[in-house]
Amino acid sequence: MTNTSTCPFTQCVDEMRSLVDAALDRYSRQGAGCPERLAEAMRYALLAPGKRLRPVLVLMATRACGGDAEAALPAACAVEMVHAYSLIHDDLPAMDDDDLRRGRPTCHKVYGEAMAILAGDALFALAFETLTRLDARPAVVAECCRTLAVAAGPRCLAGGQADDVAPPSGEATVELLEDIHRRKTSALVEASLRLGGVVAGANEEQLDALAQYGRSVGLAFQIVDDLLDVRGDEAALGKRVGKDSQHGKLTFPAILGVEASMHRAAALVAAGCEALGRLSDGAEHLHALAHYVLERNR
Amino acid sequence: MTNTSTCPFTQCVDEMRSLVDAALDRYSRQGAGCPERLAEAMRYALLAPGKRLRPVLVLMATRACGGDAEAALPAACAVEMVHAYSLIHDDLPAMDDDDLRRGRPTCHKVYGEAMAILAGDALFALAFETLTRLDARPAVVAECCRTLAVAAGPRCLAGGQADDVAPPSGEATVELLEDIHRRKTSALVEASLRLGGVVAGANEEQLDALAQYGRSVGLAFQIVDDLLDVRGDEAALGKRVGKDSQHGKLTFPAILGVEASMHRAAALVAAGCEALGRLSDGAEHLHALAHYVLERNR
Repeated sequence: MTNTSTCPFTQCVDEMRSLVDAALDRYSRQGAGCPERLAEAMRYALLAPGKRLRPVLVLMATRACGGDAEAALPAACAVEMVHAYSLIHDDLPAMDDDDLRRGRPTCHKVYGEAMAILAGDALFALAFETLTRLDARPAVVAECCRTLAVAAGPRCLAGGQADDVAPPSGEATVELLEDIHRRKTSALVEASLRLGGVVAGANEEQLDALAQYGRSVGLAFQIVDDLLDVRGDEAALGKRVGKDSQHGKLTFPAILGVEASMHRAAALVAAGCEALGRLSDGAEHLHALAHYVLERNR
Repeated sequence: MTNTSTCPFTQCVDEMRSLVDAALDRYSRQGAGCPERLAEAMRYALLAPGKRLRPVLVLMATRACGGDAEAALPAACAVEMVHAYSLIHDDLPAMDDDDLRRGRPTCHKVYGEAMAILAGDALFALAFETLTRLDARPAVVAECCRTLAVAAGPRCLAGGQADDVAPPSGEATVELLEDIHRRKTSALVEASLRLGGVVAGANEEQLDALAQYGRSVGLAFQIVDDLLDVRGDEAALGKRVGKDSQHGKLTFPAILGVEASMHRAAALVAAGCEALGRLSDGAEHLHALAHYVLERNR
């Protein structure tokens, strides 16, 4: 892999995505012990073309702390497995009832509801098994396990989804919405950054900087997601647009308006990049990625 | 807690259950960060009265290898969380569509399908977070994480469920059925024994003996489960009986007949107990538990 410092941003991202895609393919091959149809459903969801934002962030965080990006691949793939599992379950008829994801029919549309629930469950378990591929260093595995479990758990990802399904009572304020999305989206982005740092043996100050960047950029990502649902291009996004307002969901543009939502996202990206100042060096690609999050169209 | 060697079996089991129930209550309190309804749904399923077979096996395995049972509580509770999550998802309308579990309405009947899916997901994540409470010893956490993830994953628990939902083609033989149930039931029982051994710092020979006991007794447990579905007492079981044959499921009594199924379960329990001979001592309660599995009525 090309050295970060001399490699342009887009080339670096492409290389990291290729590494991640190859590793996801490798780690998700189940062999004889797994029912064929289950393995198919898992790989259908996991290997669908995607931005691979979270695993790329893991690798970039490892690099930014002076570590070897390839050594972080198990952690990067574990985060993507958790992301893929959460998308499968979110799309179920009992949840968001979506037919289209990443430009293809959703997992339950192809494999049926029961198999989709199980494919999500199996990917969740596989994420933790994959983390243990970092097993030359048990202290790193233990810390990564804790970080990922907390980020996926009731106080973060699962809790954010629960709020989404049954919004808390009270006025729909921007504070309430940010609180939901810190759990639903930015907790896993923050965890991605932390995992990358932990694999590189980062110190507390570095981990704090990465976490602050992750929280801010993760929330900006969600605001942009809400904006794309209002005015995005269905073909580029690979999923339906306008569904948030159809479902009567709380969104940033609905509360703040489009203009102020864009400003809020930009301010969060700026705050995230400022936190990176506390890393010694090697964080330039994290800067560039934060700006990509702001300007993306899918 | 009373010393194993002087404590009668039933007293020991009762004490271990109390320890487990208290720890499950402690570990599943989520505090402010978790939506209230989600926490309720998780605790409704997790704290429902149950046999606590798997966590008791974890503690007994730790004891049988000379370890301190209380030190194994995080591992014991993690297994019970995985078990509770799998029951919630199994009971969903898209899966087994069950209304009754542990004598009470199933989780989705009380909290709705979406919240039940998320409660299962959240308990699964909480299981891995709980494992990291063993964190004074990162090598133990890493090994427990691997063991539990594999047992819950696509080649074991999730795979067994997938076979249950979409049975593999081919003749319904006892070998096929045992293969499914090794994944669906006995893999998590085997993992319980292994986890207990790992926490106690067991050597390879001890872990092998525990695993063999777990595989055999886990399969015997499933055969007895099938038998109870044919002729059990609904009130004692706390779930519907006769549902396997209604659903056209493969079961041991359907393939082997009642008599031969009982003999098969007894032979498995004998084989499991024989494996315990390779443990130095302290395994007498595992012997007794294997016989309880055979004779249970709920």
